[in-house]
Amino acid sequence: MNIHEKRLKDLQHLLKKEKLDAMVVSRPLEQGFLTGYHMDGYLMLVSQTDVWAFMPKMFVDQFRSKVDFVSPSAPDNQLEAAILKIRENKFRKTVFEPETESYLRGQFWRKKGLLEFKGLTAGLRAVKEGAEISILRKSCHIAAKAFKIVKPRIKSGRTEISVSRELEDIMQAMGAKGPSFNLIIGFGPDSALPHHETSDRPLKKNEAVLLDFGCVYNGYCSDITRTYFHGKPGAEFKKVYAIVDAAQKAGVKKVKAGVKTAAVDKACREYISDAGFGQYFIHGTGHGVGLEIHESPTLNTKSRETLRAGMTVTVEPGIYLYGKFGVRIEDSVLVKSGGCEILTR
Amino acid sequence: MNIHEKRLKDLQHLLKKEKLDAMVVSRPLEQGFLTGYHMDGYLMLVSQTDVWAFMPKMFVDQFRSKVDFVSPSAPDNQLEAAILKIRENKFRKTVFEPETESYLRGQFWRKKGLLEFKGLTAGLRAVKEGAEISILRKSCHIAAKAFKIVKPRIKSGRTEISVSRELEDIMQAMGAKGPSFNLIIGFGPDSALPHHETSDRPLKKNEAVLLDFGCVYNGYCSDITRTYFHGKPGAEFKKVYAIVDAAQKAGVKKVKAGVKTAAVDKACREYISDAGFGQYFIHGTGHGVGLEIHESPTLNTKSRETLRAGMTVTVEPGIYLYGKFGVRIEDSVLVKSGGCEILTR
Repeated sequence: MNIHEKRLKDLQHLLKKEKLDAMVVSRPLEQGFLTGYHMDGYLMLVSQTDVWAFMPKMFVDQFRSKVDFVSPSAPDNQLEAAILKIRENKFRKTVFEPETESYLRGQFWRKKGLLEFKGLTAGLRAVKEGAEISILRKSCHIAAKAFKIVKPRIKSGRTEISVSRELEDIMQAMGAKGPSFNLIIGFGPDSALPHHETSDRPLKKNEAVLLDFGCVYNGYCSDITRTYFHGKPGAEFKKVYAIVDAAQKAGVKKVKAGVKTAAVDKACREYISDAGFGQYFIHGTGHGVGLEIHESPTLNTKSRETLRAGMTVTVEPGIYLYGKFGVRIEDSVLVKSGGCEILTR
Repeated sequence: MNIHEKRLKDLQHLLKKEKLDAMVVSRPLEQGFLTGYHMDGYLMLVSQTDVWAFMPKMFVDQFRSKVDFVSPSAPDNQLEAAILKIRENKFRKTVFEPETESYLRGQFWRKKGLLEFKGLTAGLRAVKEGAEISILRKSCHIAAKAFKIVKPRIKSGRTEISVSRELEDIMQAMGAKGPSFNLIIGFGPDSALPHHETSDRPLKKNEAVLLDFGCVYNGYCSDITRTYFHGKPGAEFKKVYAIVDAAQKAGVKKVKAGVKTAAVDKACREYISDAGFGQYFIHGTGHGVGLEIHESPTLNTKSRETLRAGMTVTVEPGIYLYGKFGVRIEDSVLVKSGGCEILTR
């Protein structure tokens, strides 16, 4: 049984446990997670014992060649085909996941008597297992290594966008499919914008360099941020860097199974606040990372989840002095029972 | 007034025309279209005379530096902040666009008394104007030129993925930000899968080569497909190629303002059916292309739109002989009053 077949079984087991007859799976992300076939425009119906996949005619041959444990069909109307199967099988309690559904399709399901049920696939996805962990480790390793290769090549006059492209090339040469998001490369004052859009601004002597990047390797995302000073840093940069660095280490130290996500945020935030820079740490501390660059759980002041062994999360505090510079330091880490493994190393 | 300011005014004019007090704009795509600031996680409220933008604190400085005609604010809860503004201003008829909304947010709007209203922003987006047209022309030109550069470099032994990467590099060197979708490069039997996932399969002598690709230039997508034979084509490939080529030309010839989208599909489909290959043309004929790689209008047997001057659409019939080869020929074209301009040239 391959990993996707196992996940489908895990989901069917969950349906049994929750006393649900069936669920519809509408999004390519979850469909890819459950079958290995990731394509916009098909629809799955999963019962406790069966699986149906409805898709356009042009997907069928390709689907068959990749997925040998689910039979595809190509009805004229996928949504109506799912409803027909639900009726034929006399499923009484069929659900959809409100957090993954579009408004129009969700309205359709409701009108047809389906019920909302949150978190079924998200729960399966948050805890990584088996091959997922080694793939994530490799994805993070590629990113960490790319930083070491690119850093000595970042000289005065290079543009942010040229560094972004070189990072992508380096990661692709190591086997990555592409970047895991629009890479954020910020020089000088651009580093003070947490979501800066990488531009053609050239690097000058004595400026901060912030690189927030990652790749997709075998479907899984990595996420890393490194900040350093190009030239001779002044006292302010040195001070801010040391605070963010210590805060990030305090956060990473806090990560282990059983700990509340908010406690990791608190560890970083208190350190930065105590150092007098609390108002300049203007975002959450981290997020889950996996098939999506941002996924469950979240690590911020309001989050209520508990870390479980096998989760992969980022720890990424920052201080942003608008108009001057920003410092963010980020690692992706794997939660373990007694602590965590830093993957972006 | 820049293009974004003009679009906001166009939208406000539409609100007036439709007798709507205000609308919420939730998706980065539409927000970017209206302001030039494209970022996941903010929310806009547009009335006939005012615009509000609610966002996380960390976006505010960046937003201000890019958008000088809308004032941002950073409330604790963006959705509740929008509702508060609606109440303060006594807006009676505030709408959201069901086709762009997520299920959970749509449910929230409904509970708060907002109404569904389709197609406001899609209508503005479908017809391109001013700078959009020259940007799209350039985006398509880059793709078309990249094909001419890469073709002589595709030799026996090269893998699909290596060709995909080289195409991306060539297009980036010409100013593209990146690919406009996961490029589809199919050799031999892989060309017979319309949505083939580009693999590390090497090219052999005497195989079909299908390249379906495009780039994002200045935010706008191009889309082009070229098919040819690597080696000496047999009679079957020559025949199928000639049919698809003639069908595609028939489709392009049909495109002009005032023509039904289904009529373009019919022109391609009838040609292929009359040649005896109707059952192997297993997808629609085309789609709009712009900020999204697939956008309004659609060109297939069921579509009901009418082409308008300024729309940019693809014309891309194909014949797929599973296990052997496929041929698809695609151009992006600009609809004009008396015909169309082929952009991917």
